[in-house]
Amino acid sequence: MSDPSASVYQERTYGAHQIGYGQRPGIIVVDFQNGFTDPQYPLGGAPLIRRAVDNTARLLEVGRRCNVPVATCYTAYNSKKDMPYWKVAAVMEDLVEGHPSTELDPRLYDPDYDVAMRKSGASIFFQTPATAYLNKENVDTVIVTGCVTSGCVRASIVDSFQWGFRTIVPEDCVGDQDDRPHQDNLRDVNRRYADVTDSAEVIAWIESLRGRNAPEDG
Amino acid sequence: MSDPSASVYQERTYGAHQIGYGQRPGIIVVDFQNGFTDPQYPLGGAPLIRRAVDNTARLLEVGRRCNVPVATCYTAYNSKKDMPYWKVAAVMEDLVEGHPSTELDPRLYDPDYDVAMRKSGASIFFQTPATAYLNKENVDTVIVTGCVTSGCVRASIVDSFQWGFRTIVPEDCVGDQDDRPHQDNLRDVNRRYADVTDSAEVIAWIESLRGRNAPEDG
Amino acid sequence: MSDPSASVYQERTYGAHQIGYGQRPGIIVVDFQNGFTDPQYPLGGAPLIRRAVDNTARLLEVGRRCNVPVATCYTAYNSKKDMPYWKVAAVMEDLVEGHPSTELDPRLYDPDYDVAMRKSGASIFFQTPATAYLNKENVDTVIVTGCVTSGCVRASIVDSFQWGFRTIVPEDCVGDQDDRPHQDNLRDVNRRYADVTDSAEVIAWIESLRGRNAPEDG
Amino acid sequence: MSDPSASVYQERTYGAHQIGYGQRPGIIVVDFQNGFTDPQYPLGGAPLIRRAVDNTARLLEVGRRCNVPVATCYTAYNSKKDMPYWKVAAVMEDLVEGHPSTELDPRLYDPDYDVAMRKSGASIFFQTPATAYLNKENVDTVIVTGCVTSGCVRASIVDSFQWGFRTIVPEDCVGDQDDRPHQDNLRDVNRRYADVTDSAEVIAWIESLRGRNAPEDG
Repeated sequence: MSDPSASVYQERTYGAHQIGYGQRPGIIVVDFQNGFTDPQYPLGGAPLIRRAVDNTARLLEVGRRCNVPVATCYTAYNSKKDMPYWKVAAVMEDLVEGHPSTELDPRLYDPDYDVAMRKSGASIFFQTPATAYLNKENVDTVIVTGCVTSGCVRASIVDSFQWGFRTIVPEDCVGDQDDRPHQDNLRDVNRRYADVTDSAEVIAWIESLRGRNAPEDG
Repeated sequence: MSDPSASVYQERTYGAHQIGYGQRPGIIVVDFQNGFTDPQYPLGGAPLIRRAVDNTARLLEVGRRCNVPVATCYTAYNSKKDMPYWKVAAVMEDLVEGHPSTELDPRLYDPDYDVAMRKSGASIFFQTPATAYLNKENVDTVIVTGCVTSGCVRASIVDSFQWGFRTIVPEDCVGDQDDRPHQDNLRDVNRRYADVTDSAEVIAWIESLRGRNAPEDG
Repeated sequence: MSDPSASVYQERTYGAHQIGYGQRPGIIVVDFQNGFTDPQYPLGGAPLIRRAVDNTARLLEVGRRCNVPVATCYTAYNSKKDMPYWKVAAVMEDLVEGHPSTELDPRLYDPDYDVAMRKSGASIFFQTPATAYLNKENVDTVIVTGCVTSGCVRASIVDSFQWGFRTIVPEDCVGDQDDRPHQDNLRDVNRRYADVTDSAEVIAWIESLRGRNAPEDG
Repeated sequence: MSDPSASVYQERTYGAHQIGYGQRPGIIVVDFQNGFTDPQYPLGGAPLIRRAVDNTARLLEVGRRCNVPVATCYTAYNSKKDMPYWKVAAVMEDLVEGHPSTELDPRLYDPDYDVAMRKSGASIFFQTPATAYLNKENVDTVIVTGCVTSGCVRASIVDSFQWGFRTIVPEDCVGDQDDRPHQDNLRDVNRRYADVTDSAEVIAWIESLRGRNAPEDG
């Protein structure tokens, strides 16, 4: 992406370091629930999100095979009472517990493997069991997938960084309603908090670890 | 700002609601420390940040006169040990406790009035006393000031929203290294989490509350 | 309760202040789920817990009539994967999503009124939406009910205090497996973090606020 | 300690499991600041606390030699504004930034090694960088030291458990104002959240790990 402000940030030392991979991956899956992945809902089915669903499905298949911890979340509320002050009408109307748009997309969710959680904020880490679970699993590198890049994914990337994880964003596993905010947010986080890469590289890394993290495999 | 993607988000109901003011303001001041406000440091003194300092100084003068709680923070670490994985070289080199770039800018910080705190993440709310303090003060509306819009300010806005506050961003009280990321991030949060306005409007609102929040005033 | 160590703490200024009531109550209900309230389960049905259920039912009836926010929680996990390191066998075996011992006791839970949440730690505030919800409702005084006093109730009291709420514990609305740990923990928190009282006093206070918090009432 | 309620809890499966050591220790040091360790202050110098200081000094000497991460904290506030509702007069009067009782005891604090942090709640983990730091260091087993057992230590033990760490309490490294609350709280946490042991055992364990965690040592 061409970015006229790139040199300003570069001169001020943004993006001077790469983060790099650690030794113990974990995958977070942000809001791949019907409300965002199914075109019948107001927020659902944007092309970049459909692309992210396909690539994340492939990544998760490898991750589960290699015993990588997976934390997945959906956004839902009891009612308007416990909603923060959202400006998005479809969030306020549809993301209430029991509404079909709060169900995790079955193409991505494996209830026998994933650790699922409801969230009430933007970030998968905000007041959910995600941090404690990944900490208990000794994860040091968080792979971020889900939607929407310029909303809940951005918030989750910042929190992953803040909690002390190495944070990796395969660009083709996160999606947005439109391309420009998608790119803008990847630009911002790539300067500060996370390495932006693609799913092929992440899959290759996970497979390279296989012997270490899954000693019981043949 | 002209934004080719605006109609896509509008159709999907982003920005359909305004948040509006509550009854009890609080002001947060993010990272107005010498490292960002003084041009002698690698991250310091960008024009948008200098503008934000001037406008925030005026806002704080009114806020303190009207008994509005003020929480202010700076970023600093003991050493590289307790730093998260930053990609910004100047953060890693300079933001260590004791370095002059970690000192709060005296044009903005009033040690007899403000509640100051050190932070280790991007957001002023991340693992600091800010949420507990504003909750104890019964603040319902958080006014966001500081820098950098596309970094710590964005993270603080998201957290203010997540913690259940009405979140107001006077655009001229937050600053960035360059204009485009500044605008991009205001666009994203204005669609979802916060009302973006200016300091004149916020000052007028605070002054209109005066009788209620400062009963001891004449 | 006679306590030989009372004078030691008194001389060191513990318990020197009372906290007192604020103006806006909220009620938290900790783990009144079948696993603790129903005697058919290993952890269920102790006399002090049955007493607490009865008294809390009365308190909640008044609270709901007076529009007091109610946050209620149960402990449950996806599986052993996302459990912290518990030493209690029945927690590890039974508190898995879908098991009947994770269902909220219907004598206490009103799904049309209460804000319910799953928790994974000991405290109702630990990585749940409770703090954000009570903050959004401008609650300044948290009334603590539930079980077990020497476990999840103690943890919830400490967190209520830490988040900046005035914390009130009606002793007859919290229960334990046995009396001594119940008393020991009330003693500890009453010295530091909370006012320990009874449900009659709390109910009288809530009813005295009625006009202010429920203006729509006749 | 003889405990008449022990059989009640045992029958209900409390304490049925031991937690055990992991592979990567971290040490937390709670409130070993002059206000608690120096007898000239109202809260300071109780015999159990003096004993805990001596034993913790020995533990820390071994821990630092073996490259074990150490997080240490003190309690302090800007002023009464940002204090939660304490009932302890000496906390409210003395624990203000700049007062000598907020200084870390130099017998225990090594500024070149330890990661120090100010806390505003009871727990060392409450809204401080401790969790992120220990997570970044891949710590899986937290050794708890400090004071006061029936206050900030208890709260820190619960949080260590909640965040997913294996939690170990060497009984002779934590201290209280009097013996009975010390014992009562160790009893409660030993049933649920932590293994209570002594410093000799913990030191032996840390030394046994030496080769693994300090590969540069001879």
